[in-house]
Amino acid sequence: MVKEKENLLEKIVSLCKRRGFVFPGSEIYGGLANSWDLGHLGNELFNNIASLWWKKFVQERDDIVGLRGPVIMNPKVWEASGHLQSFTDPLVECKICHERFRQDKDEELKEHAESHKGKAEWTEPKNFNLLFKTYIGPVEDQQHVAYLRGELAQTMFTDFKAILETTRKRLPFGIAQIGKAFRNEITTGNFIFRTKEFTIAELEYFVKPGTEDEHYKNWDKFILKFLIDDLKLAKNKIRSHVHSKEKLAHYSKGTVDLEYEFPFGWGELTGLASRTDFDLKNHEKLSGQNIKYKDSETGEEFLPYVVEPTCGLERLMLAVLINSYEEVEPRSGDEEAVHEKEVVLRLPKALAPIKVAVLPLSRKEELTKPAYEIYRDLQKHFMCQYDETASIGKRYRRQDEIGTPYCVTYDFDSLNDGEVTVRDRDTMKQERVVIGELAEYLLKKL
Amino acid sequence: MVKEKENLLEKIVSLCKRRGFVFPGSEIYGGLANSWDLGHLGNELFNNIASLWWKKFVQERDDIVGLRGPVIMNPKVWEASGHLQSFTDPLVECKICHERFRQDKDEELKEHAESHKGKAEWTEPKNFNLLFKTYIGPVEDQQHVAYLRGELAQTMFTDFKAILETTRKRLPFGIAQIGKAFRNEITTGNFIFRTKEFTIAELEYFVKPGTEDEHYKNWDKFILKFLIDDLKLAKNKIRSHVHSKEKLAHYSKGTVDLEYEFPFGWGELTGLASRTDFDLKNHEKLSGQNIKYKDSETGEEFLPYVVEPTCGLERLMLAVLINSYEEVEPRSGDEEAVHEKEVVLRLPKALAPIKVAVLPLSRKEELTKPAYEIYRDLQKHFMCQYDETASIGKRYRRQDEIGTPYCVTYDFDSLNDGEVTVRDRDTMKQERVVIGELAEYLLKKL
Repeated sequence: MVKEKENLLEKIVSLCKRRGFVFPGSEIYGGLANSWDLGHLGNELFNNIASLWWKKFVQERDDIVGLRGPVIMNPKVWEASGHLQSFTDPLVECKICHERFRQDKDEELKEHAESHKGKAEWTEPKNFNLLFKTYIGPVEDQQHVAYLRGELAQTMFTDFKAILETTRKRLPFGIAQIGKAFRNEITTGNFIFRTKEFTIAELEYFVKPGTEDEHYKNWDKFILKFLIDDLKLAKNKIRSHVHSKEKLAHYSKGTVDLEYEFPFGWGELTGLASRTDFDLKNHEKLSGQNIKYKDSETGEEFLPYVVEPTCGLERLMLAVLINSYEEVEPRSGDEEAVHEKEVVLRLPKALAPIKVAVLPLSRKEELTKPAYEIYRDLQKHFMCQYDETASIGKRYRRQDEIGTPYCVTYDFDSLNDGEVTVRDRDTMKQERVVIGELAEYLLKKL
Repeated sequence: MVKEKENLLEKIVSLCKRRGFVFPGSEIYGGLANSWDLGHLGNELFNNIASLWWKKFVQERDDIVGLRGPVIMNPKVWEASGHLQSFTDPLVECKICHERFRQDKDEELKEHAESHKGKAEWTEPKNFNLLFKTYIGPVEDQQHVAYLRGELAQTMFTDFKAILETTRKRLPFGIAQIGKAFRNEITTGNFIFRTKEFTIAELEYFVKPGTEDEHYKNWDKFILKFLIDDLKLAKNKIRSHVHSKEKLAHYSKGTVDLEYEFPFGWGELTGLASRTDFDLKNHEKLSGQNIKYKDSETGEEFLPYVVEPTCGLERLMLAVLINSYEEVEPRSGDEEAVHEKEVVLRLPKALAPIKVAVLPLSRKEELTKPAYEIYRDLQKHFMCQYDETASIGKRYRRQDEIGTPYCVTYDFDSLNDGEVTVRDRDTMKQERVVIGELAEYLLKKL
């Protein structure tokens, strides 16, 4: 069982590299500590997941507005948020070679000790801040230090009052943002699951103090619904993990993760934290500004409490890839594959990087020319591919492997009846459709 | 004339802040050297510009594929690219107070000298690198230095071979990317025009050496077409600026910018550079990897030449805002505005942050309830707003000001005939549309 799971991750990594979903980053230079680039298909899949999140968490709701903040903010922001003091990993240093390690990673410490013939001695653990540090301007001193954001939430807090004024929103309401965050973590790994640079879709939901538990429950359900109904993740591969009091982040009064059963074990996909008024209170204190909410009915002024659903987009992408991967008996008609299993990536249609592939049955110009024209027309509506190389079976197989929901084949009959064959990735049904109605037919299906 | 232009920028800045397009970043902490946050409308406008670029430069073409690389790459990348050596500003230091300034900014130097009663003396200019520096891991030494990317192009070069293999593309073809870049520039300003952190839409187009001039000309036309046909920028506000040989970037054999006439003067919107094989050659040399292109027909192996169109997205957004801003005679029926001019933001429909506003004529529940339902339905298709506060005139005016193309009004007649009034921002025509056909009617118009 463990073996089979490991194989699954290997297969996904291999498919991702071979077909252009994910490449090792800076690979020609031997890579860079677990950094990955998204190739042409990975980039589309990623953007589709981000767009679907935005549609469900922002566009289709009337209590959420968007925001786009910078990676580098005023350093006081991270002082107020507590990240400069508390956003740390405890590290120990090897007294022989001065390399540093996470104190809580027994295996790594042991392995390193072995490299010194078991003799390694360790310093006392020291807290190491996880924010990446840089300097603004030409002078590298304490006065010009700045940090790359470790989470997106802080812009939502510092802009809270400005957004309140421009949107005229009333509690409860939320501010959403998608963007990159950076954490200088020592331990990364498991493909794109944990990297120092990653993308989060984050939402701060501002509520009346005392109502946070109710909203927390609602958001818990809402996120789960997104994973199951929209991303189509298997229900039995998802579980809740409630953080124990000791393990709560410095700003949280309660946190629950939704975890997915990856081939390497259960891993956090999304997090929901009850942040109270911790951040707003500290920003008010440090900035000296009044950022309270004023209830227009009662006239009461107070700092709202915050409930925060967060999704890691690269992780969602990995879960979606694993969840969609299926090996089936040969079905494409590719003669080279007749004794092998074939891969079908059953991506939700909304997420598929390529929506439609247009395939002329043969490379004869009488077929390729009109097929190419169909492709050019469909391309105005969604991402398409045109492929005239190799046998039709091989080309079907290629599209199955990247999860393309529909293949359109232009054959010799098409020349006479003006119809093409549309093949459905999942039902394997083939329908003849009039070319003039093709775009509309596909738009409806998608 | 100058006064009028300055006023225009002031008006845009004020509108942006008041309505939630753009806020000063970290404002509660007194801001951070010319950093800006995009509010709920700015974020949508920005994303719409990015999507339109992607549609025109990637989706609708069959010779371009996308990519998503990281902000932090292997530092050798920047050694090979020449950025560590040549991506610099010459700075001089005031010998009295040690503050540093750009050597070529006479006015600032003069102003600073005045603060020392005209007595300032300057050091010899020293080159200051524009890449933001950080450290990977807990040790801050030369071995762990890394840089925030100063352009997106480098991922397209380091991944060139991998992308070639997975996409089976043949020359000429391009790789596109949208993302943030960081430049530690001393001089920023003019609202969102020049900031240290910004977003670029960049495309590396790989061509056979000897054909680069032809492709350069084609891309020059293509970008101009995008600005005029898609972003609808006024033709007479755009001009070409060919870089003189002395001012070319270290990698370029020729560069032409398209500039827009901003209220503060002509400013670069887009750049087109002929980068030759400068980057690929250097990456091949430093990495020791063969990253040559092999022509499948002739078997010939060579490094392609590169033509690079780049657009600054925040700048495009500023140009679009300025270009769309219009003051008209009162037309909304807002009684408070009857003696003033009214603002209409004539954004291209594809770019408008809010596509449709749904407005019940009065706050009576018999109108608000069905109007709200219409809004909830339309929301599944595009970004909408529902507004029942204030007079109908005032609400029309609010929507004109943020560029909403269509306002849907539910009135007392709607209760009987099941129709609503659709008001067109530009023609000011009002049409009655059956509620059941409203979504389709609007989707067609948009």
